Amino acid sequence: MDRARKYFKCTDGERAVFEAAIKLAMVFHQFVGVPVTRASARSLEKAIEEAVRIQPWVVRARARIDRRALVKTAGRYGYKSLDARMLVVEVETAYGRARARCSMRFVSELDYPLMCIDEVRLSGMK
Amino acid sequence: MDRARKYFKCTDGERAVFEAAIKLAMVFHQFVGVPVTRASARSLEKAIEEAVRIQPWVVRARARIDRRALVKTAGRYGYKSLDARMLVVEVETAYGRARARCSMRFVSELDYPLMCIDEVRLSGMK
Amino acid sequence: MDRARKYFKCTDGERAVFEAAIKLAMVFHQFVGVPVTRASARSLEKAIEEAVRIQPWVVRARARIDRRALVKTAGRYGYKSLDARMLVVEVETAYGRARARCSMRFVSELDYPLMCIDEVRLSGMK
Amino acid sequence: MDRARKYFKCTDGERAVFEAAIKLAMVFHQFVGVPVTRASARSLEKAIEEAVRIQPWVVRARARIDRRALVKTAGRYGYKSLDARMLVVEVETAYGRARARCSMRFVSELDYPLMCIDEVRLSGMK
Repeated sequence: MDRARKYFKCTDGERAVFEAAIKLAMVFHQFVGVPVTRASARSLEKAIEEAVRIQPWVVRARARIDRRALVKTAGRYGYKSLDARMLVVEVETAYGRARARCSMRFVSELDYPLMCIDEVRLSGMK
Repeated sequence: MDRARKYFKCTDGERAVFEAAIKLAMVFHQFVGVPVTRASARSLEKAIEEAVRIQPWVVRARARIDRRALVKTAGRYGYKSLDARMLVVEVETAYGRARARCSMRFVSELDYPLMCIDEVRLSGMK
Repeated sequence: MDRARKYFKCTDGERAVFEAAIKLAMVFHQFVGVPVTRASARSLEKAIEEAVRIQPWVVRARARIDRRALVKTAGRYGYKSLDARMLVVEVETAYGRARARCSMRFVSELDYPLMCIDEVRLSGMK
Repeated sequence: MDRARKYFKCTDGERAVFEAAIKLAMVFHQFVGVPVTRASARSLEKAIEEAVRIQPWVVRARARIDRRALVKTAGRYGYKSLDARMLVVEVETAYGRARARCSMRFVSELDYPLMCIDEVRLSGMK
């Protein structure tokens, strides 16, 4: 049951990808800028994943921060701030008969942190 | 032409709402928390609208901050931080044959800042 | 040793509180808006504390999210977004001969999330 | 008059730099990640400056985004997200007898976006 259903004029597939996009953009715009080191990366990944998972219609969430981007240079100022180049996020949503797998990753050929739709599936179809 | 096309396995309608959702969630997660008064609200609305408009596939963007929520209480600590209850955002995207109108507004009956799909239109259809 | 020392024209006490303020404002402006429930609050507190701790001159950091503010209302839209009213952050910094204890908490009489200086101590003083 | 005075155990100079640091860190952690182009940079600078100016004890604020960092590569994915390397922020605060000039800028020799204390002045001193 969806108490917000009346606010959506769309198909189940459209709703599923809409919800996935909200979560991917949340991760980018909420967490980019957080100070991070190799030692703290795991706790940050976990907080990101939980922030995604507790939102409506999410069935799976995964966040990975590239440790190679976190090689600490010497001294106190050697840590990094999370940026989209280090981040891979995958989210799967389910709404009605639709299921969507979407992700965010830095795409070198575009020089751009792309949020994309990997698959939309409809169940109960022949 | 979309240089990122190959990263999307979906319909034009799904892509259009996906792109709209990214922009709405950007506004929420990027701008909630900004200090704001009645005097500064217009410049913040304008910055939000431009941040939406320059992103891919957006054809229209509008942000409004409710001035009634910005009644300043006395003294230096009387300003507010932007929160989702004060904010209405509308965005329209176009991708291929599809056009989507989406919005974010606080919905009292849900006590929730809802991002929703107001309309998806396909052109060239009988 | 501080590789950035030449960029600071100030006393050790001023530097210690300056560094503490940076960390408190980081927490507010980075993390306000993160979706949170009672179940996810601990992972978020931990990520906040680590993001503070890895920054320069921090000797102690503590973040607490008020679980009473996270009573979930029914349904999928019942979770909350982190706001400053739910958050208490304490940070202690040390620079040269100075040590500062600073904190952020919501102060009811001001209706304001106040960042304040609880104590500045100088060692080696008679 | 400062209604929050009792929450601060410190000198006027310490308070002035504490307040300046809050504003600099607000800019970093709130605005890093905002989509920006050469065309939108001015509205974003203005929103940043106003968000600083309306906060307690600020007497002057200035934000500049380096247009050279905003050279748009071809196509829809050619815009940038605001990052600390493009950003210079200056803030001046006054509290009691103290005045502080502080700033944030990217320091190449540290490969770090440094927030620093340029000057603390006390008035009425011989």
